[in-house]
Amino acid sequence: MSSNSIYLTREAAQTLSTEILLAAGLTPDHARTVTGSILAAQQDECYSHGLYRLLGCVQTIKAGKIDPNAVPVVDDAAPGIVRVDANYGYSLLAFETGLPKLVSKTRQQGIAAMAITRCYHFSALWPEVEAIAETGLVALAFTPSHSWVAPAGGTKPAFGTNPLAFGWPRPERRPFVFDFATSASARGEIELHRRAGKPIPIGWALDSEGRDTTDPTEALQGAMLTFGGHKGSALSAMIELLAGPLIGDMMSAESMVFDEGAGVTPCHGELIIALDPHSFLGGGVAENLQRAESLFHSITDQGARLPSQRRYEARDRNEALGIPVQAELLAELERVLAELRR
Amino acid sequence: MSSNSIYLTREAAQTLSTEILLAAGLTPDHARTVTGSILAAQQDECYSHGLYRLLGCVQTIKAGKIDPNAVPVVDDAAPGIVRVDANYGYSLLAFETGLPKLVSKTRQQGIAAMAITRCYHFSALWPEVEAIAETGLVALAFTPSHSWVAPAGGTKPAFGTNPLAFGWPRPERRPFVFDFATSASARGEIELHRRAGKPIPIGWALDSEGRDTTDPTEALQGAMLTFGGHKGSALSAMIELLAGPLIGDMMSAESMVFDEGAGVTPCHGELIIALDPHSFLGGGVAENLQRAESLFHSITDQGARLPSQRRYEARDRNEALGIPVQAELLAELERVLAELRR
Repeated sequence: MSSNSIYLTREAAQTLSTEILLAAGLTPDHARTVTGSILAAQQDECYSHGLYRLLGCVQTIKAGKIDPNAVPVVDDAAPGIVRVDANYGYSLLAFETGLPKLVSKTRQQGIAAMAITRCYHFSALWPEVEAIAETGLVALAFTPSHSWVAPAGGTKPAFGTNPLAFGWPRPERRPFVFDFATSASARGEIELHRRAGKPIPIGWALDSEGRDTTDPTEALQGAMLTFGGHKGSALSAMIELLAGPLIGDMMSAESMVFDEGAGVTPCHGELIIALDPHSFLGGGVAENLQRAESLFHSITDQGARLPSQRRYEARDRNEALGIPVQAELLAELERVLAELRR
Repeated sequence: MSSNSIYLTREAAQTLSTEILLAAGLTPDHARTVTGSILAAQQDECYSHGLYRLLGCVQTIKAGKIDPNAVPVVDDAAPGIVRVDANYGYSLLAFETGLPKLVSKTRQQGIAAMAITRCYHFSALWPEVEAIAETGLVALAFTPSHSWVAPAGGTKPAFGTNPLAFGWPRPERRPFVFDFATSASARGEIELHRRAGKPIPIGWALDSEGRDTTDPTEALQGAMLTFGGHKGSALSAMIELLAGPLIGDMMSAESMVFDEGAGVTPCHGELIIALDPHSFLGGGVAENLQRAESLFHSITDQGARLPSQRRYEARDRNEALGIPVQAELLAELERVLAELRR
């Protein structure tokens, strides 16, 4: 944590977040699930998805697009598919509502998918794949965003920042989890460079003429780039398709039109795939999960880091210390709460 | 095609490939399926997976590890899972044998997986995801290889070149298909640079001391790198897990030990996931597939290329012309056939 940060108790952080969200108009169920995701990110020192996001939530709710009272509706679409219509509410309650069915279907079928549609998605995907991996299943998650990112070989936005997340259960350890944007950088990172007056690296974005740029303002008006050239670009297209037309929901370009310039959290869908090692392996699950550990050892034994390792270390450290929060952000959140209550 | 190439009729190419494989000892079913994959690649001008591979096949069969008579055994493991034990034969016959069950399970469950185990895998993955997408389903495929690739932040091999392929059905067009290695380059590309005495780009590999290298010989003794830094590295780890311990088969490091220095085609498993748009969407499949076309247009309208576009163009061009083959390769293959028959 930075020097001007303090620690809140988990209860205090929870109360602050919940009260802001309730005062902004969310139902208690939405306030609870959004708070859960925000606190998990804050404890893991993933500040971009932590308490800071409450400011965006309040703005999104005020903009009047999201339904703060939305009740997700679960549809048992097929033996291996559960659909959850978020009804234009936040995605997290839809995820929580559909999760038991996804888990039971996966155990029964061996593989199953959950399609969450018409949701406002602002959380990271790692809490979701981590929750599924905690049940002993393997998980993949995909979601589009708003079309800010050019395809490889192009200069104009076609894709969202389109994250992909994966979770793998580990015996007596936290799951192996990664969650990354298929864009070269997060849009928020470019925004932070702009605010700080700092140049961005070549490879993050093009200006509106399609030229490489180090100017964050020009980058935000131009097009972001995918990571890894044509391979990242192919993955990004795949995520548009899987979490868009496959599940009958908007792609990033359509979601951006739907936003009508409000600049709020993107509304679209999410696809989650879960796989059950027991069904694949019959017996021998323990032995195969143990074999997977040898892969993790071959990475860490040479001094390389596993994805999520830093996040898990922060989580452990803050378990005793509390939820770290910047003093300025805390003051701003208290001001927002006071205003909402006025 | 290059200037010293000629065109064979499809029948002539098929006969040559089949006769070599039969003479090397494969059963007619294996010779037919391997030939199908090799000819598809050759027609698409994917020469690295084309007729050239026959040389490696002969070498692999001679090395005595692969079972040229293997008969794949299908196991209906769960409502959403078909397992195919390739019994240490080539993967392609196992794929062909399991495919009808994968397709019918996917149509029934909405999502299903095929785990091919104990197979020798030398073909590209695109013919497989393309075949599935041709049936109207969406497909993902993953397979490990031999551990030549270092994780991000490391210097020693832990992963294979671990390809990932994706196929999406398009109305009245060939499927949207990509298939890429999660290594920065193919191992064969480094080998080609070595033979040509040309340096490789920085970012492809490290030498055995863990330093960046442009020397292909040092690269082959050191460690290849993943594409896209820590993101490509995370994907590569995911592929090891999905197509390894999840399905009870070897990871790349284990497959390399199993090879015992023979240097033949890697033996391991493959995971294929198929998803049915009809099950996800109920009605509205045509309309959603049409919407997906707008994504492809947003890419091609700005002059960028879709993955597989060049391959499909080659296929169309060669449909009338025949199967292009380098004169030297053809001569070598004829020599190999004569030797096998001696």
